[in-house]
Amino acid sequence: MQPEAVVRSERPFSGRLIRVRVDTVRLADGSERQREVVEHPGAVGILPVLNDGALVLVRQYRHAVGRTLLEIPAGTREPGEDAEACAHRELAEETGYRAGELRELVRFYVSPGWADEELIVYLADDLEPGSAHPAEDERLSLVEVRPEEVGRLIRQGQIADSKTIVALLAYLGLPLGQLWAG
Amino acid sequence: MQPEAVVRSERPFSGRLIRVRVDTVRLADGSERQREVVEHPGAVGILPVLNDGALVLVRQYRHAVGRTLLEIPAGTREPGEDAEACAHRELAEETGYRAGELRELVRFYVSPGWADEELIVYLADDLEPGSAHPAEDERLSLVEVRPEEVGRLIRQGQIADSKTIVALLAYLGLPLGQLWAG
Repeated sequence: MQPEAVVRSERPFSGRLIRVRVDTVRLADGSERQREVVEHPGAVGILPVLNDGALVLVRQYRHAVGRTLLEIPAGTREPGEDAEACAHRELAEETGYRAGELRELVRFYVSPGWADEELIVYLADDLEPGSAHPAEDERLSLVEVRPEEVGRLIRQGQIADSKTIVALLAYLGLPLGQLWAG
Repeated sequence: MQPEAVVRSERPFSGRLIRVRVDTVRLADGSERQREVVEHPGAVGILPVLNDGALVLVRQYRHAVGRTLLEIPAGTREPGEDAEACAHRELAEETGYRAGELRELVRFYVSPGWADEELIVYLADDLEPGSAHPAEDERLSLVEVRPEEVGRLIRQGQIADSKTIVALLAYLGLPLGQLWAG
């Protein structure tokens, strides 16, 4: 359970979004191992809930997995950007909706065995419609989903990413008071 | 919603676990963008449930995030390895338990904006104890958790990774029949 001491560190790749670090670490028994780490600035996701209970999702093509997925609105944090400010910005850009208040639902690491990306999921209600203005390389379409459709969409693989599944299960599956309060 | 045509592709990093690909893609409007993609062989997670309802988790230090986390047993798929066989193997290696049968609970992409890692989560019950033999660079301790402790452990950030939160919310939060059957 001891943290691993870093003996050497190299950075073989620095991209626009991610960087790769290869650390040589010394374990408690004195042996050394290499750990590959992808550095990512972190991200936010927002689950927007309309007054009639419908959930606002975005459909978009994801090049990394070669598929079109149905996801909650989300975005990467800019350097130094406050997570909640980022969530307000991404929600407005991707959906047009402005949220009165955001409540943090849950935060998690996407894949802590090799990546440092932390994702914070917010619940957004009390929404005011407006016009969306997604980034120029984002081609999104908005889809309103009823809570009772969520199980089928996950089973069919249309909803298939960690942040959206976590957000929907946390919101629909457990009373918020039971899981998140107290 | 059109898939993006790949114009050029480079691979600036190939490690033991991950590889980085940088694709230049052409969008529907004819413009070009670069997409950074981390290639990962995929992974499995297993939620082991004992006869008395306790959940078997593993506590381990995660170098990528610099923290000790409480997670479901999990592991990376070896090239060509069947996911279910991988899950049986990882469960036995990390916990000693042998599962009679594994049931797929859910599968998802950890971060489809930039990584292709798919994670498949299985539910394991009808468990037979045995001796664990984790990989030599894995320092794990087993922790039995009661279902009613899960909310607190997530809120406190001891449980803080996507696969464990998805597994626990899917198992505890929604009746399996409601979400996963039919």
